[in-house]
Amino acid sequence: MAEQAPPPAPTEKKLTKKELRILERQKAAAAAAEPKLNDQYGELPLIQSQDKTGKDLTNVKAINPELNGQSFWVRGHLQNVRAKSKIAFLLLRQGIHTIQAILHESDDIPRPMIKFSSSVPKESVVDVFVTVSLPDQPVLSTTQKDVELNVHKLFVVSKALPELPFQIEDAARPDALVKAKDSTFVDVGIDTRLNTRVLDLRTPANQAIMRIQAGVGRLFREFLESRNFVEIHTPKLIGGASESGSNCFTLKYFDQDACLAQSPQLYKQMACACSGLERVYEIGPVFRAENSNTHRHMCEFTGLDFEMTIKEHYHEVLDVFSDLFIYIFDNLAERYADELAVINEQHPFEPLKYQKPSLVISFEEGVKMLKEAGAQQELLEDLNTENERLLGKLVREKYNTDFYILDKFPLAVRPFYTMPDPKDNRWSNSYDLMIRGEEIVSGAQRVHDAKLLEERIQSMDIPTAGLKAYIDAFKFGALPHGGGGIGLERVVMLYLGLGNIRKASMFPRDPKRLFP
Amino acid sequence: MAEQAPPPAPTEKKLTKKELRILERQKAAAAAAEPKLNDQYGELPLIQSQDKTGKDLTNVKAINPELNGQSFWVRGHLQNVRAKSKIAFLLLRQGIHTIQAILHESDDIPRPMIKFSSSVPKESVVDVFVTVSLPDQPVLSTTQKDVELNVHKLFVVSKALPELPFQIEDAARPDALVKAKDSTFVDVGIDTRLNTRVLDLRTPANQAIMRIQAGVGRLFREFLESRNFVEIHTPKLIGGASESGSNCFTLKYFDQDACLAQSPQLYKQMACACSGLERVYEIGPVFRAENSNTHRHMCEFTGLDFEMTIKEHYHEVLDVFSDLFIYIFDNLAERYADELAVINEQHPFEPLKYQKPSLVISFEEGVKMLKEAGAQQELLEDLNTENERLLGKLVREKYNTDFYILDKFPLAVRPFYTMPDPKDNRWSNSYDLMIRGEEIVSGAQRVHDAKLLEERIQSMDIPTAGLKAYIDAFKFGALPHGGGGIGLERVVMLYLGLGNIRKASMFPRDPKRLFP
Repeated sequence: MAEQAPPPAPTEKKLTKKELRILERQKAAAAAAEPKLNDQYGELPLIQSQDKTGKDLTNVKAINPELNGQSFWVRGHLQNVRAKSKIAFLLLRQGIHTIQAILHESDDIPRPMIKFSSSVPKESVVDVFVTVSLPDQPVLSTTQKDVELNVHKLFVVSKALPELPFQIEDAARPDALVKAKDSTFVDVGIDTRLNTRVLDLRTPANQAIMRIQAGVGRLFREFLESRNFVEIHTPKLIGGASESGSNCFTLKYFDQDACLAQSPQLYKQMACACSGLERVYEIGPVFRAENSNTHRHMCEFTGLDFEMTIKEHYHEVLDVFSDLFIYIFDNLAERYADELAVINEQHPFEPLKYQKPSLVISFEEGVKMLKEAGAQQELLEDLNTENERLLGKLVREKYNTDFYILDKFPLAVRPFYTMPDPKDNRWSNSYDLMIRGEEIVSGAQRVHDAKLLEERIQSMDIPTAGLKAYIDAFKFGALPHGGGGIGLERVVMLYLGLGNIRKASMFPRDPKRLFP
Repeated sequence: MAEQAPPPAPTEKKLTKKELRILERQKAAAAAAEPKLNDQYGELPLIQSQDKTGKDLTNVKAINPELNGQSFWVRGHLQNVRAKSKIAFLLLRQGIHTIQAILHESDDIPRPMIKFSSSVPKESVVDVFVTVSLPDQPVLSTTQKDVELNVHKLFVVSKALPELPFQIEDAARPDALVKAKDSTFVDVGIDTRLNTRVLDLRTPANQAIMRIQAGVGRLFREFLESRNFVEIHTPKLIGGASESGSNCFTLKYFDQDACLAQSPQLYKQMACACSGLERVYEIGPVFRAENSNTHRHMCEFTGLDFEMTIKEHYHEVLDVFSDLFIYIFDNLAERYADELAVINEQHPFEPLKYQKPSLVISFEEGVKMLKEAGAQQELLEDLNTENERLLGKLVREKYNTDFYILDKFPLAVRPFYTMPDPKDNRWSNSYDLMIRGEEIVSGAQRVHDAKLLEERIQSMDIPTAGLKAYIDAFKFGALPHGGGGIGLERVVMLYLGLGNIRKASMFPRDPKRLFP
């Protein structure tokens, strides 16, 4: 487009900054005084930043009996309307908070306004100008039970379709009611939910689950930063295979072959042990091209990884893990009590039992316990899901904890970079962390010697081509180190007893799901 | 492998926990008392968690004149040794801290030990047992200038190759010395550095740059969490194209076609505006299959994204951006002064000038300034790199700031989800943030109306197939919102004046570099 004059605004151009500000304020005041649209209700034009009136919106969460008699604007999703001819009850929702708003026919509130309110599609975003009052009886169906709102004005900010794929109230109903034998309630299935995940995420329980997910990440960082860990960002696009070559998503990177990192493993080690950063952590996506359609596998999940140098023994890492999880569990209970209560209302779960310091038992002891319980388990083979679960149950019975560390795994079942036990190399300096009988962390002391690394890689028949830079990194003096990776969504699923990892992920990815 | 007895340790099996702990402590004490290897020096066996003696290592950072006369172990990289027959000077390094350690021939220190010290390859990891003393004159070549260490024992923990790809001292030399006209110093080139990045990262300046990078992320989170933003993790594997379909890395996702997210744009909007989370942020990798070989492009970088609902005007978002960057800049200067000083020693840079609140100028004003300065710039076309730079210079001259917000870009040069200006749709409610004349943030108010979104997509001839879930998400009542994405490495590069974005990334990815 050729050069063009700007839209004319000649008067304002000559004003000083201060004068402009005054003019702006005057305009805003005028705009606020003038009733928009006709008067009291209707559909607002698209909010396109037309005005800068300093309009204030009060949060539903903040509305309590102390505000009795006060008037203000509230914006929320209109979850439900029940209207008769002379009265309408609106259920407004904002995040995990809901409140009742009422329109009574009166001199102020004409009947057509009540009719209009009942015509607004559910889940539309509305602005209401209201006065707080105290209900005679607590409002049972809302979170703000001791207050209600008298509506003076009602405008639609964003109109929903008249038909929703499912109702929020159906999606938010307690499990016990939906799953009861004689239940007549709709059971909104996981696929229906995930297909329109933005609606599903609006249920109070899901709002709370997402906040718990954020909370676990936040507490992970808080704890590690207090212990002088440094956050790093390592590449997800890598040449050659990430660890073993299998289960990698592969792609073309210009004229080279690349794959998506199955973990930040090799890079966090290089940062920690070979670059001298010593204590590092990373929060980022992890990609697994595993065709596993289970309750606990996803093809993309969030890894909370850390890696640290050790002085002499990898139990220094276990101590950090123990303190870390105690910090996370303690603070979830304390700082996220509201969210936990909301989740409990829909999906009741048992509070997690854990010890301080965390219980550590050896793999060998675990095998012994399994055998004593009559299970089949080879000493030097990995636990299958069934035995993992059973062991969780046995540990709970014996030690009264849902969280424990299983230490000293057989070397043969661990990745090539795992440090063998110094005395008996059937074993290794490696461990898993378990919640309610399922693994949430895998970790180990790592091999920091290039020669031993090469031997291990050869003995496991892994192609070394893609691993050259990694192996070489240990040839310039490397620090002894260890660490582990936490599956964020697994922690959330297991802590909350959700039963399906998809519920702990905002937009989950499994072999069949790539949308939304 | 068939069932097998565990390695025998019958005595210990029958002890109580407490007895075991005592036994362990006794063993540890015995091990500590017994001189390992011969006595004073040599190569340690691989640290494989043989011992749990509670060995303490003192950090180089913590060694100061107050510790005069005290003895302890230190572990560090041996950056250099200068040895004569009777004396050796060791330079030990730990992160950004260095200290001098001395071996004097004496009754305690035999001559072969001095010879041994000089044979240890540079960059090997060593453990030294030392006593602190005060040097007659400050040690100029170290960070711990007021102390030196007398070495009693010296053991190699991890031996480096005798020949390194380059010397840390060469890689750490101040730019002014290397780039001087008559310089005879080696100039370690960027490719040489990146090819063995783990060595390159050991220079004090690079250690500090990585800590500044972590610092920017940390301050970003701190600020947003104080404003009630919730961290989210959105998928990087997406069906269809991320935004426009071009410059996407594509791959096979089982039997579906997928691509790597070019930004969390569409998902963070869905989380913020359509799911009711209202204020969200994400820190994660961003993938661009752009064949751009410039100082400021990478194919994978770290995006610091946020998205928030607005009440009525997108300048609410600009206010958050303004406060956010002031918080970041203020706290970098305050909390990362040591790191900034270390970087300054090698790569001197001018401290960033910024205003409080941040300067906002309109695109239109920017064009006017450029024209007045004689540059060619169409009113409704995007700025090219040259004009972006020039405008940065002009703004600095006029307003004395290196940081500013350029507001109200032409609609035609912005993505389809950008909200048009309410009065004149040649313009849009969008902005860039600039540091030293280069863009670090792009953002806008977004379209939250499905119909307008569809119109915009059609008018720009973008295929809608992959965007269906995104468009549909706005059909259930959506909140007005805006936000932006920050390129983490760009902020670090421009704040520090590094001149090349690769220096601000731990393991950078450009069209030619996929290793290490």
